[in-house]
Amino acid sequence: MATNYRVKFDVAEEAVEIPAGSMLTAAAEKAGIQINQPCGGQGRCGQCAVQVTSGKVRRRSTMRLSTEDVEQGYAIACQTVVEGDLEVVVPPQEKIQQHLTTGQSAADVSVPDGYLAKQAQVIHRVPLELKPPSMEDQTSDWARLRTALLQTTSLAQVDISLPVLQKLSGVLRENNWQVTPVLYAESSLQADGSAQVIDILPGLVAPDEPLWGAAVDIGTTTVKVMVVDLISGEPKGQASEYNAQITRGEDVISRIIFSSKGTGNQTLRELVLETINELLNKASRRAKTRPEKIYHTVISGNSTMIHLLLQIPPSSIRLAPYVTVANHIPVLSALETGLNSHPEGKVTCLPGVASYVGSDITAGVLSSGLSETEKVTLFLDVGTNGEMVLGSNEWLVTCACSAGPAFEGAGVLHGMRATTGAIDEVWINSQNLESSWRVIGGGKPKGLCGSALISLLAEMLMTGVINKSGRFDFTRDTERIRKGSHGGEYVVCWEDETEIGEDIILTEVDIDNLMRAKAAIFAGFSVLGDSVGMPLKAVEQVLIGGGFGQYINVEKAVQIGLLPDMPWEKFEFLGNTSLKGAYLALLDFQNREEISRIASKMTYIELSADNRFFDAFTSAMFLPHTDMTLFPSVQISLDK
Amino acid sequence: MATNYRVKFDVAEEAVEIPAGSMLTAAAEKAGIQINQPCGGQGRCGQCAVQVTSGKVRRRSTMRLSTEDVEQGYAIACQTVVEGDLEVVVPPQEKIQQHLTTGQSAADVSVPDGYLAKQAQVIHRVPLELKPPSMEDQTSDWARLRTALLQTTSLAQVDISLPVLQKLSGVLRENNWQVTPVLYAESSLQADGSAQVIDILPGLVAPDEPLWGAAVDIGTTTVKVMVVDLISGEPKGQASEYNAQITRGEDVISRIIFSSKGTGNQTLRELVLETINELLNKASRRAKTRPEKIYHTVISGNSTMIHLLLQIPPSSIRLAPYVTVANHIPVLSALETGLNSHPEGKVTCLPGVASYVGSDITAGVLSSGLSETEKVTLFLDVGTNGEMVLGSNEWLVTCACSAGPAFEGAGVLHGMRATTGAIDEVWINSQNLESSWRVIGGGKPKGLCGSALISLLAEMLMTGVINKSGRFDFTRDTERIRKGSHGGEYVVCWEDETEIGEDIILTEVDIDNLMRAKAAIFAGFSVLGDSVGMPLKAVEQVLIGGGFGQYINVEKAVQIGLLPDMPWEKFEFLGNTSLKGAYLALLDFQNREEISRIASKMTYIELSADNRFFDAFTSAMFLPHTDMTLFPSVQISLDK
Repeated sequence: MATNYRVKFDVAEEAVEIPAGSMLTAAAEKAGIQINQPCGGQGRCGQCAVQVTSGKVRRRSTMRLSTEDVEQGYAIACQTVVEGDLEVVVPPQEKIQQHLTTGQSAADVSVPDGYLAKQAQVIHRVPLELKPPSMEDQTSDWARLRTALLQTTSLAQVDISLPVLQKLSGVLRENNWQVTPVLYAESSLQADGSAQVIDILPGLVAPDEPLWGAAVDIGTTTVKVMVVDLISGEPKGQASEYNAQITRGEDVISRIIFSSKGTGNQTLRELVLETINELLNKASRRAKTRPEKIYHTVISGNSTMIHLLLQIPPSSIRLAPYVTVANHIPVLSALETGLNSHPEGKVTCLPGVASYVGSDITAGVLSSGLSETEKVTLFLDVGTNGEMVLGSNEWLVTCACSAGPAFEGAGVLHGMRATTGAIDEVWINSQNLESSWRVIGGGKPKGLCGSALISLLAEMLMTGVINKSGRFDFTRDTERIRKGSHGGEYVVCWEDETEIGEDIILTEVDIDNLMRAKAAIFAGFSVLGDSVGMPLKAVEQVLIGGGFGQYINVEKAVQIGLLPDMPWEKFEFLGNTSLKGAYLALLDFQNREEISRIASKMTYIELSADNRFFDAFTSAMFLPHTDMTLFPSVQISLDK
Repeated sequence: MATNYRVKFDVAEEAVEIPAGSMLTAAAEKAGIQINQPCGGQGRCGQCAVQVTSGKVRRRSTMRLSTEDVEQGYAIACQTVVEGDLEVVVPPQEKIQQHLTTGQSAADVSVPDGYLAKQAQVIHRVPLELKPPSMEDQTSDWARLRTALLQTTSLAQVDISLPVLQKLSGVLRENNWQVTPVLYAESSLQADGSAQVIDILPGLVAPDEPLWGAAVDIGTTTVKVMVVDLISGEPKGQASEYNAQITRGEDVISRIIFSSKGTGNQTLRELVLETINELLNKASRRAKTRPEKIYHTVISGNSTMIHLLLQIPPSSIRLAPYVTVANHIPVLSALETGLNSHPEGKVTCLPGVASYVGSDITAGVLSSGLSETEKVTLFLDVGTNGEMVLGSNEWLVTCACSAGPAFEGAGVLHGMRATTGAIDEVWINSQNLESSWRVIGGGKPKGLCGSALISLLAEMLMTGVINKSGRFDFTRDTERIRKGSHGGEYVVCWEDETEIGEDIILTEVDIDNLMRAKAAIFAGFSVLGDSVGMPLKAVEQVLIGGGFGQYINVEKAVQIGLLPDMPWEKFEFLGNTSLKGAYLALLDFQNREEISRIASKMTYIELSADNRFFDAFTSAMFLPHTDMTLFPSVQISLDK
């Protein structure tokens, strides 16, 4: 006899009894509760998430839920087995949607355990009560300050910037010789190193008063800024915005071309500075401070973004043999770089590896933990380029595939960026081939963003709308499959359902572009594995970073052959690993040094010069792949 | 029987015969040649200098002649003994005057023996033929350059400035990867130190192509600039001009006061930059180069001048306890300082010791050789302040007496700076008390400059116009001594002899000011000697630097008690020791380090806090002094 459990939903009058081992969706059905299941109960969409506030369940999958979500009791109803009496909260549908689309967009960082500013920081305040000068002691102001600093710290050398010299005598005398110099040290104050006085504050500043820094991730599309209290290590304000350079080209290649014409390079610098400075203002307001109080900014970004920020001509990045002007940038001042933080504040641009493997990736490798794990790990950041790293704590190989901007919505008829009005997930009913979808921000759809394109491609394949070559099956009985001016096409939304007043469709040309992009990325995996003589199945975990990564539905990405076919639990979505890496480097100079080590340690494989890449690319120009033994789970699904 | 020698003057028809041991003036008289002797043949004025082009003479004194002059045969006729057959050129009088007034005004430097740029310089060009990047070697431009630099030199670390990064890729590619980076190294390239790439030149620059640096001496009154080829070490262009700050105050005190009002500090910075930049232009033109090609500028100046250049508020210099904001300034860039040399070029402000002992003195101590001699040496720089150093290679004590600007012509009714129209030397006929004088640039006189004031005071004392207390002897039978509105006065020039249309006079008030100034300086000597328990007569040499020093007539300066009473041969005039020190520091980093050591090593004695100073000052408020045993030679002259 099977045990029965009682399940009480908050939105239902009465509890229901169901047999142990039932799905939560079954319990909901019995209780008469509507739970959206656009994917048809396959656990793919996460739309049926509920919160189990009491009682025992077993989750078959936590796909699309964060660890935090699971800790709070969230469960995907269609993938969750009842194993005890339960109390369940059904969140309003909008709440789930919002959570799924934006909940993870802010970098989800936490202060590292045992963080101690004193040991980890390069920015330090050293409150000093100085003995005023007298006729018996006519030491200069700077020598007096310097001596006190050398006595208070273990530093071997202290220097000073001209602007601080210019304000020094006033601050000392107006504050009765009680002042708090701000130092930038090469490493910690405890070390026998050197430091520079970059500011001097009036009076004796209390040790726990916030001391400000910023982490900045310059993406080709989006710039993110996090203002951090360096004393507690806590992020206190975040902001993100489109990179204003977008108006001068959507991808790095078009920006490089723009930069090489006339004053293009200067224009692009001014545009990205405009964005960063606006975000520093916004994030500072949220942190209840001002940008002028930020003494250290750590920046990550792809190599082109870093070149453009510093007005270093990026042309050589685009032309064979594809070299950067510099991967390692010296530490600069905010004044030199044009940031509106404290003018003598320091700006660290984290080091990259190559033209298409920038510091967004090295920072990502650090924050993902890849460089410290013993597990063979594949780290992936899909944007305009697919940058990937294979390795562990002992070795790292990296490459970048010019996947093109298809997954960012460019080169696709109704593609668009993941903003309000974009469809971000599509489901196709396998019976009638009708579609349903989810729109970011609700409302009528305007187009398809990257994750929708993956979904759509997978659904079309799994429901037989297209075959493995990406060709349409015109024999199916539906108006949605038709011939258009671009060859075959599938109608996702009818004209009257959309915001744009025309059918939203996916054409064979679009499919071709998407297949090229996914084939390039998968070929990258293959070459990386090949270069170290390791099959992809030896990979023990797949870490996915980047803004795009966090919306990918793994199952669908595997179905189209974008990601390798592995058990879901091997995949982990890490959110903005680049910003998180910049944050970690901002907090602890050892992290910054570790990123330098990572950059030096990585073996870069230039795919454009590698014949293996073309072979692997050609083999991957099918859905999911010509070699179906690489995709056993997809084979099984297709067989169904 | 005395031997006879033949002396042939160029301006005489015939040679004359005179006994061995005769003076040249006697030979001239016999030949019927007029040689000016305003001082009456005492060897004080140098006006009777002639050039012995052939034959042997013995010079009793070479006062007012440079070593070079003597090498060229110049001799002061009234102090030169005929010891063989001679040929003598009598220079036109104007030529002598000009020589005496301006001949030594340019810094008279010569390249140190064995100067080797490679070993001594901090600025280096390193021509490099780089291997271009390829698909097999995708090293970044900067890493490629850096690796080549580390391989070519012994440097442990090479950094790069942002502006060079910005132009790097263009210069490399336009020049087929043949380039010449310009480095600023902490010491020599041979050392295991660090350096920064501050520019990158196209092509392979030949090793002997000039490489430019500049030495700058910022005086309160005059700024001097010397543009130097760092490869050969030779000064190639010089220029000097009044410090444009003069319009905002003649001495450091009035400038400090001006600087503390409103935007005064900024105004003074702009004014001195205007002067320096104009001089850099002018000296560069003379050196056939441009300021933008100057990669290193070494600056000396008194502490106030350095503060004002860098817009560091100098107020504390003026107020007890008289401290500077900084004596040691970090190495800056031309961009930061506002110089119009290469923006990434370095600017070294040499280190000073105290508020009134600046880097003009530390540089002077180096260039005078004081810090390397075993002789007990007194180094003196008289300007607005009398700065002095007593010591040897083992110890150094220094002090500054606020002598006031009397010897610069300020605070004296008809005082003026040593410019065209200023009387720079005065003689009084001891019989009739009539005056004669010399005017800078010839023409009618406008007033009395510092050296004239010393002359005049001494002549008045030696001829009995005034007594040891500086009071006039109204019993003398001359119209030149009279009572005026300021008490007693002596008329140097009558109204119709002057440019200004009034009598040029020296009053008792003027005399009082001058006595205070000379007493302060002499009291300084006393305290310095006292502080190391050493009488002044133990001093083995007196080195006199500064623009003012070179015009001082030692005998007259001794007569009024401004300089200690010592044999003339112990005195040496070194010209602009400050600029010369800056030049030496520009040439060789070891000199720069030595100046730092000098600055650290000097014991500074604050006179305003020293009772000994007031006692010594009071004792020195006589001409030459209350204690005549300190001035035996003056006693003898007075007894005559």
